[in-house]
Amino acid sequence: MTAAALPAAPPEPPLLLREDRDGVAVLTLNRAGARNALSMGLMAALQGELDAVAGDARVRAVILRGAGPAFCAGHDLREMRAAHGEAVEAVFRACSRLMIAITRLPQPVIAAVHGTATAAGCQLVATCDLAVAAEDARFATPGVQIGLFCSTPMVALSRAVPRKAALEMLLLGEPIDAGEARRIGLVNRVVPAAELEEAAHALARRIAEKPRRVVAVGKEAFWRQGGLGLEEAYAYTAGVMARNMTMDEAAEGIDAFLQKRSPRWNT
Amino acid sequence: MTAAALPAAPPEPPLLLREDRDGVAVLTLNRAGARNALSMGLMAALQGELDAVAGDARVRAVILRGAGPAFCAGHDLREMRAAHGEAVEAVFRACSRLMIAITRLPQPVIAAVHGTATAAGCQLVATCDLAVAAEDARFATPGVQIGLFCSTPMVALSRAVPRKAALEMLLLGEPIDAGEARRIGLVNRVVPAAELEEAAHALARRIAEKPRRVVAVGKEAFWRQGGLGLEEAYAYTAGVMARNMTMDEAAEGIDAFLQKRSPRWNT
Amino acid sequence: MTAAALPAAPPEPPLLLREDRDGVAVLTLNRAGARNALSMGLMAALQGELDAVAGDARVRAVILRGAGPAFCAGHDLREMRAAHGEAVEAVFRACSRLMIAITRLPQPVIAAVHGTATAAGCQLVATCDLAVAAEDARFATPGVQIGLFCSTPMVALSRAVPRKAALEMLLLGEPIDAGEARRIGLVNRVVPAAELEEAAHALARRIAEKPRRVVAVGKEAFWRQGGLGLEEAYAYTAGVMARNMTMDEAAEGIDAFLQKRSPRWNT
Repeated sequence: MTAAALPAAPPEPPLLLREDRDGVAVLTLNRAGARNALSMGLMAALQGELDAVAGDARVRAVILRGAGPAFCAGHDLREMRAAHGEAVEAVFRACSRLMIAITRLPQPVIAAVHGTATAAGCQLVATCDLAVAAEDARFATPGVQIGLFCSTPMVALSRAVPRKAALEMLLLGEPIDAGEARRIGLVNRVVPAAELEEAAHALARRIAEKPRRVVAVGKEAFWRQGGLGLEEAYAYTAGVMARNMTMDEAAEGIDAFLQKRSPRWNT
Repeated sequence: MTAAALPAAPPEPPLLLREDRDGVAVLTLNRAGARNALSMGLMAALQGELDAVAGDARVRAVILRGAGPAFCAGHDLREMRAAHGEAVEAVFRACSRLMIAITRLPQPVIAAVHGTATAAGCQLVATCDLAVAAEDARFATPGVQIGLFCSTPMVALSRAVPRKAALEMLLLGEPIDAGEARRIGLVNRVVPAAELEEAAHALARRIAEKPRRVVAVGKEAFWRQGGLGLEEAYAYTAGVMARNMTMDEAAEGIDAFLQKRSPRWNT
Repeated sequence: MTAAALPAAPPEPPLLLREDRDGVAVLTLNRAGARNALSMGLMAALQGELDAVAGDARVRAVILRGAGPAFCAGHDLREMRAAHGEAVEAVFRACSRLMIAITRLPQPVIAAVHGTATAAGCQLVATCDLAVAAEDARFATPGVQIGLFCSTPMVALSRAVPRKAALEMLLLGEPIDAGEARRIGLVNRVVPAAELEEAAHALARRIAEKPRRVVAVGKEAFWRQGGLGLEEAYAYTAGVMARNMTMDEAAEGIDAFLQKRSPRWNT
């Protein structure tokens, strides 16, 4: 091969992959060489895909996973160290917006975690509606080890697990294994690594079988009522259920139940 | 038997049974044929009995149980499907009022759960102060399966168990067993089915031995302080304890403790 | 020895001991004869020492332990029974101030619990950032047994453990063992009694190795964000992280990480 025949640089692989199947959108963080660190580029790609999914009626559940050896290593420290002033705060604002977007997405989001989930990667797991972990998965909020306390990850972590378990992870910065993650409520299921993909898909399919609009009503209600006092929460959700009862899905679902047949969902 | 001798229809059995013993009121949901579904009639009966118990100084603890094969199957879907507009919302408002009434009742309420506790039935378990389950008990918030998301049950469920455990029950709608219910904090104890009644009574008796007015002070404080910030909660409960110290029960109880004798409660 | 030679009464032992080693301040409740009951004197001594520690840059972690057979038996009932009116409320106000001070201390506080931790003693454990328990440790909020419901302890307890677990402890007043305390999230670790001191020190040393000011930033953020809604919590912590990034510790820690070397903390 002569110099004149040098090939063009290969195109950059996309930062995020999306594959849809049976109503499930699988989003894969695709910076394997950087352990899927959440660079501004990857966060923007994920935010964009979540925004697209939100309006896509064909998607009924989302799986979030990582390519390569890790689920997600948190923020891109090299990029962040090079930033200054407002550019730094922009990173944390973009990340926070992303986490809130996951809770607001009409479709449930399932984290499928293998390898390590650290810092903002652990925050992703804590933020997702459900999480399945491979037996070899490890979870940590190690910011304190590098002088940057995991203060935004703690928002999701401390709302998912008991207080002392959250403080232990945050103050020591050391990883916990998948079994401990399940014990404290950070993940729903632990499976052998070889079964992770299928376990996440099985959960996603079971959600995808449900009436889409009703799942969206319920997910929105879950996150909204959580911040209210008991009486406010009941006043709000009683209204949600009354409106839910006016939906065709409730009519069909209840009739099917009373007639001992399977419901037929139109949405 | 001739036509002329046809007997009159037997009287309808009461929707709710109440039996008092040793300071414990046992309330039994008594629609066994409908798996104790919470019809408007049954909710009104339960609300009425709770209102009566609230003012009844002879009652020091309440056990809530179900007759027949199930604890409670949730709302009466047949009745709800026949209702329209404001009548539907009235169901959820009545149910929410009932749940709040349990938290406001001066006496602790113990759910004794066998068979299935689903939807608003599971919400009852989550709402009660304590819960004992038979080994065969199953718990579910299956509304999503019939197009009617369990949005009011989630209020109680999400305040009793960790977030991901609650979301899993709500999004999948599948039952969990008694062991898992204990693991996530939905019930306090699991016992063999044959021992359920005695286990619930044993808990109730231990509460009934306590000074009634002091239990009421503490239960009210528990539910009120839970909605406050840390400093507000301390300011409020410091006042509660100072007032508690002025009660005869505190004087007697502390004196008995210091004199190494059993206290004698007048109330 | 003649009457004339009678020795003077020995000096009162201090109510609280403090011993500093390797950046860890060990505070020992030292009323062993009273099972370390929190008399006004002991609370004042502990408050004073916490205030001193707060401004002492040499202290990077605190261990709280009890001398004698128990960790802490709660309030001093003899003293409290002798008090009247405002003096009673002053006890609960002083105690609440103490608990809030633990959460506000820049340094993490680790409870090292042996024997019994009851009432305000159990509240101390629930309030500390982390807790290690000896296998023989027992935890109880038994106020209801003596007519004085544990209403201030419930503030800390109900924020550390699931609702039904807290209500069971409060309504029954009976002790739980160390294993159950770990299961419900009241303590982080359970170790053989002979290893308690070393286990607590090991945790404290691991925290003491971390950059002091960063730990303080994180601990403050933890307790502040916990009372906020999700969006407010993210807005607040995104700002915290941006400011953290301007600290020398973050620059050094991240550079060390990227250069695959150990960080050198100046603080």
